[in-house]
Amino acid sequence: MKGNFVYHNPTKLYFGEDAMNHLSNELKNYGPTVMLSYGGGSIKRNGIYDAVIAALKAVGKTIVEDAGVMPNPTYEKVLEGCRLVRDHKVDLILAVGGGSTIDYAKGVSASAYCEEDAWEKYWVNQGWPTCRTVPVGAVLTMVGTGSEMNGGSVITNRKAGFKLGKVFGPELYPKFTILNPRFTMTVPQYQMVAGFFDIMSHLMEQYFAGTADCTTDYINEGLMRSLIHSTRIAAKNPQDYEARANIMWTATWALNTLLKCGKGGDWEVHQIGHAIGLVTDATHGMTLASVSLPYYRHVMHDGLHQFVRFAKNVWGVRPEGKTDEQVATEGLECLEGWMKEIGVVMHSGELGVTEENLEAVANAVLILPVGYRTLTRDEVIDILRQSM
Amino acid sequence: MKGNFVYHNPTKLYFGEDAMNHLSNELKNYGPTVMLSYGGGSIKRNGIYDAVIAALKAVGKTIVEDAGVMPNPTYEKVLEGCRLVRDHKVDLILAVGGGSTIDYAKGVSASAYCEEDAWEKYWVNQGWPTCRTVPVGAVLTMVGTGSEMNGGSVITNRKAGFKLGKVFGPELYPKFTILNPRFTMTVPQYQMVAGFFDIMSHLMEQYFAGTADCTTDYINEGLMRSLIHSTRIAAKNPQDYEARANIMWTATWALNTLLKCGKGGDWEVHQIGHAIGLVTDATHGMTLASVSLPYYRHVMHDGLHQFVRFAKNVWGVRPEGKTDEQVATEGLECLEGWMKEIGVVMHSGELGVTEENLEAVANAVLILPVGYRTLTRDEVIDILRQSM
Repeated sequence: MKGNFVYHNPTKLYFGEDAMNHLSNELKNYGPTVMLSYGGGSIKRNGIYDAVIAALKAVGKTIVEDAGVMPNPTYEKVLEGCRLVRDHKVDLILAVGGGSTIDYAKGVSASAYCEEDAWEKYWVNQGWPTCRTVPVGAVLTMVGTGSEMNGGSVITNRKAGFKLGKVFGPELYPKFTILNPRFTMTVPQYQMVAGFFDIMSHLMEQYFAGTADCTTDYINEGLMRSLIHSTRIAAKNPQDYEARANIMWTATWALNTLLKCGKGGDWEVHQIGHAIGLVTDATHGMTLASVSLPYYRHVMHDGLHQFVRFAKNVWGVRPEGKTDEQVATEGLECLEGWMKEIGVVMHSGELGVTEENLEAVANAVLILPVGYRTLTRDEVIDILRQSM
Repeated sequence: MKGNFVYHNPTKLYFGEDAMNHLSNELKNYGPTVMLSYGGGSIKRNGIYDAVIAALKAVGKTIVEDAGVMPNPTYEKVLEGCRLVRDHKVDLILAVGGGSTIDYAKGVSASAYCEEDAWEKYWVNQGWPTCRTVPVGAVLTMVGTGSEMNGGSVITNRKAGFKLGKVFGPELYPKFTILNPRFTMTVPQYQMVAGFFDIMSHLMEQYFAGTADCTTDYINEGLMRSLIHSTRIAAKNPQDYEARANIMWTATWALNTLLKCGKGGDWEVHQIGHAIGLVTDATHGMTLASVSLPYYRHVMHDGLHQFVRFAKNVWGVRPEGKTDEQVATEGLECLEGWMKEIGVVMHSGELGVTEENLEAVANAVLILPVGYRTLTRDEVIDILRQSM
């Protein structure tokens, strides 16, 4: 473990088929008024909404409905939530949904009592909350983003034309999250698989951070092996409880700050993916899948040692009689094979990236000065072309 | 991930060579009176004591000295600490030392205001604190026990003739721990290596829990590989900062409850080790080392599948053309080779176990009804004999 760092993750996780049984008791730790934030009607069709309402009523909470959180939550919606929080003096924001809903809840928590322009303060200038914040709790219904146990909050500002991420500190992490793998089983195959790749991308973007770290990389390899093992099962049989449970747990640990200890992250794939999402509104995980192979093949020689380790420790590539380049290349071929096996989108063209909007996508890509190499704009264009 | 479980670990970790720089600021979160608990004079010789005193004085704390915490902390000493806490109205117990000192601090925290017999309530009957407890902070100077990020508190009651462990809940976990690998470098080689094996035992006793869990076992394998890699370096060159840092971080994650998620633990090796320690007062980690190979060879056939996985994923044993028994046996041979390489005690005879006190040790062994098989008293005697 190199360098100095602080690890602090106070989120309480209730995991398993019976996890919801803890909700009423947990709710007793908060005030009388709970804002229930969720997306479309899916949680009403699969019974999760009714279960949450029952838990809230069992302990006599006043419920403030906050429906309609969209897949790429907008800052405009965040401001609506802020008004609800202030008007009803909300004591707890209970986010029921996937990462978008939890990201949104954190945004509302930090912005409701912010006296400056919250978009500028948090997402543009990456500032810290100085105002009062509202506790957030979560019931997760779709895995991938890791938002259930971190401070991440990706918000889209249509007016400004940007989709930006802010990572808040532990004070804004969900105080608790209900993780019931069964709740993720009604997610359509396309969204499920997109979530699987989002998890793999979180693991790889920290593994290929530009710096290696012995212990953290070994933990990361364990999580990658677990994810690969379980997604192969779940892609064929989404109703396999144990596979879905392994994936849910892996997703939570893939992005709860443990894997950046002693090293950073690269996150250029996420930047390119966000740009594609902004222009095409394509599903997040699929945008990452469509550009990952071109990106990693592009930087492979700059981080050759780590790509060799990836091939051997994650995919079991045998190095005997091969050059490092051959071993590393084989590792990425194994990654490609797994991607095709679970059925992610392999080309950004399928997501709506065209020669016409290529420039627009490239213009929206934030180029980070980290990782094995800092891309030039031409390299971004080149990677996008290869991804089409 | 099978079954239902709760994960909640709020301990804040400051890691690295500069970690102590955070202590003064962290201390501001607590009241004016701090009890400084530590062992012998070692922290006075290596400068850690002076650094801690400086941090306490920098924020004007009143310091209550509590020296003399012994390697196997006694309940009698715990009661002394309780008196100090009550007499001086202590706001924070700052434990500076290894696992023994932090285990002791938790015991004092839970017992100071306990109106019943604390030994009976916590260590014998495994009850939960119902009284007010005192916050505990830690500065770790020796790795192994994981006490810096869990609720464990192993206390020896000489009068009762028992060394018992109690695992308290998150409310008694250290609120914060300073983890500076340099602070562990003045530990003598014998204690250092004993700590290394204690870590490996924590990993193995959860890996060989009697039940397998895909994700947790993959994470555990990553930590074992990291530990094996770094201890080989540190045993030869204790001053290798990165190796010591990797080991310190691995030790913390080996026993902070993450690795029991979705599965339990076996802990019979710890029970036998505690019994040896009670009778011989031998160093904890060495007691575990001296009985591990006889124990695991004894249960190997009951958990063959997991021992095969251990051989392949942790030690890289190639299975081609071998029976499962052969692969599993090879894995334990690799373990034996690593133990000899880092220089742990291989025989309990060297620790003072004799034909004369064998019965006394066996009588002190708590037999747990978990793991791959529940030992009979005769099996315990048999394992002890093989360990001599």
